[in-house]
Parts: sequence; structure tokens; C-alpha cells
Amino acid sequence: MRLRKVKNAKERLKVDNNTYYIEDASIYKGKWKEVFQNDHPLHIEIGCGKGQFMIALAKRNPNINYVALEKFDSVLLRALEKAMEEDIPNLKLSVMDAAKITDYFDAKEVSKIYLNFSDPWPKSGHAKRRLTYKTFLDQYKIILKDDGDIEQKTDNRHFFEFSLESFNENDWAIHDICLDLHREKEKYPDNITTEFEDKWSKLGPIYRLVAEKK
Amino acid sequence: MRLRKVKNAKERLKVDNNTYYIEDASIYKGKWKEVFQNDHPLHIEIGCGKGQFMIALAKRNPNINYVALEKFDSVLLRALEKAMEEDIPNLKLSVMDAAKITDYFDAKEVSKIYLNFSDPWPKSGHAKRRLTYKTFLDQYKIILKDDGDIEQKTDNRHFFEFSLESFNENDWAIHDICLDLHREKEKYPDNITTEFEDKWSKLGPIYRLVAEKK
Repeated sequence: MRLRKVKNAKERLKVDNNTYYIEDASIYKGKWKEVFQNDHPLHIEIGCGKGQFMIALAKRNPNINYVALEKFDSVLLRALEKAMEEDIPNLKLSVMDAAKITDYFDAKEVSKIYLNFSDPWPKSGHAKRRLTYKTFLDQYKIILKDDGDIEQKTDNRHFFEFSLESFNENDWAIHDICLDLHREKEKYPDNITTEFEDKWSKLGPIYRLVAEKK
Repeated sequence: MRLRKVKNAKERLKVDNNTYYIEDASIYKGKWKEVFQNDHPLHIEIGCGKGQFMIALAKRNPNINYVALEKFDSVLLRALEKAMEEDIPNLKLSVMDAAKITDYFDAKEVSKIYLNFSDPWPKSGHAKRRLTYKTFLDQYKIILKDDGDIEQKTDNRHFFEFSLESFNENDWAIHDICLDLHREKEKYPDNITTEFEDKWSKLGPIYRLVAEKK
């Protein structure tokens, strides 16, 4: 998700004063139940963009706790502004670098990870930056519960081909593969779209998979 | 590959008198080197249809032995007629039921298996008939050498989704996944098309993968 840089985004995020926005998520590592004050399952999105997906999902499933994470504060600010128009007690937002995910969540603290339209890093020299590269998958394995899984969607064919191979190579159980999600409305009636998906699904297939810890 | 039934196809195949056509391949189990009178690697295609793929491949690679297998004798007859117009000493053709593949090849006798545009058996109740169903994969594992692999191509999205999951679940290393083969001519310049592929690649993506024994 790319967005023009917003002036003072970091400061403007703090205005929310902890209703949704968490400035330093690392202090809640292992303590997310305290943040939400319940022991519901914890689902996270890495790269939440402007938040459309997580906001809709959190409203639909009040008994699941959601943490929407985004690398760019200018982008997260848009998600925060959207969330502030609503009352969603089971949603938190934070700025975070995916490479440090184990600083923010304890072993087996997370039940599900969403990766929606992550940056495909098309150059082969940048493969290590892709969010389904081995080093990231190893981190996800740590924070996921034993029956936890990852749901991935992307419109980028090469990135999806890479991801399938990476999950396979790193010993994940892949299921619910769909190579044209928007032509399978009956099979996936509950699909919640992202802003990006709304735009790009008209131009080509959206790919989707679920990868489970073995 | 579907074709109108040809009268006396079985008898007409025999006319070839062992140049290409092998009536009972099971007698050569473990002895394919004798058939070809050399110890070149053995590659097979299960479901060779009218033979375009295997004939082109065998001509291109004289140092590999090829056995093209087809369930329907009317279809194999077309392949045989085509082969008989050429001189291809490294090619044999036989009628065979894929479910009995271990009757025809010994353990670790085969270096590569091609599955091109196999019947997708779209009904979920017919999943067991798909050539990438677990029971078939188990058989392939027996006849393949330790570094052997399977190359699969199909235009059928659901069948390919199923195949990816089946290879993953049954512990194969999947690589060279391509979700739109005909848009990757630079990456796969050596792709040899089948009759079916020539027809259907204009209407949608051709999917491709390689699965290696782990």
C-alpha cells in the first residue's frame, strides 16, 4: 500500500489516545489479552493499508481480537481516521516493521495472520523482503498457535508463485488455494475486500491461499 | 484427450510390429534399458493423447528414452500414425491404465513423468480418479528415481488448485510453478505444446509445476 506522506503523521496518530492506536506494541508482547480485557483469539494483519479489510472484519466478528499492523505511519493514519468513525472495541492499530514481529507477539499468542496484497518486491535480488520469504515464515511459526494459519491474498502472479513454493518448501500445509478468487463468489461468500482488491480485481485474477503450521 | 472411437484400433496398433508400439508393457518392467538397448534416462508421459508433445520431445532429446502412455487405444493409434512418419528410435508407445503404473515400471526406473492436460475429473466425488490424487502420487514415488520429478501442465484451474494441494500434502517439493505459462515465453522458451494446449491457451492461462520427490 502506497500513499503520499502525510505531514506529522506520527503526532496525529497519537491524538487517538489509545482507543485504537498503540504507539509501542512491544510492551504488550504476551499481554494482548490485557489490552482487549478478554481471552478471545488474536488475529493480526501485517500490512493493513488504509484499514478497510480489518475494520470490516472486526465489526463482523466481535468475539475475535484484531491487531492491524502497518509499516507506514501516513498509511496507518488513514486507517485510524476510518476506525475513529466507528466503535470497534476488538480492534487495535499499530505501526510496525514485519521483520520485528516477534518483538510484538509472544510464542503461540496469535491464531491467524492475514497477508493482503503485500509488496511483491518483484526484483529477484529483493526476494528476502517478500513477506512470505523463509525468514518471515520462520517468525510467523513462532508467534502462531499450533493450529494457527496464514491467509494470503494477492493480485501479483509472480509473488503468488513464489509464496506457494516458499510455503511448500518451509513445511506448511497449504489449503484453500484459489487462483481466481472473484470468480468463486459461491465458495468464498464471506470474502472481505481491501481497497487495493476493489481496484485490481477488475483487471486480473486475485490469488488466495491458507497455510497452516504443520 | 477425447477422440471418437476408431474401429479395430487395437488390431491396427499391432500393424506397427514393435517399432513404436508395445502391446504388453508389463513384460519390460525393470528391463526398459533392453528395449532401447542403451542406459539413457527414461521419461514417460501418462496420457500422451495424440502424441504431439512426446514426438517433438523425443526428437529434440535423442539421449533420453521416452515411453508415451495412453489409456484409450483409439487415441494412441493417432499418436502411432504420427510417429510412423518419422524415425525416432528413442520413443515407444503403449496403452496403459495409470492405476497400474507399477506393473510397467520397476522401483526407481523412471527419471521424469509428464502429466499434460490430464482429465480434471471436476466432480468432487471423482477426486480419486485425478492423476494427482494421493494414490497415484504414491505410485509415482515408487517408480521415480530419488532425484526424479513430475512436470504437470493443465488449463483447468480447479484441477491445478487440487494438484498443488495434493503435492504439498503428500510431501513433494514443488518448484517452477507458473500460473500463466504462455505469458512467460522468455522463462520457458523450450515449452513444447500439446494439441490440447494449442487450442486452449488462447482462452485462458495454462498452469504448470514441477514436483520433486523429497
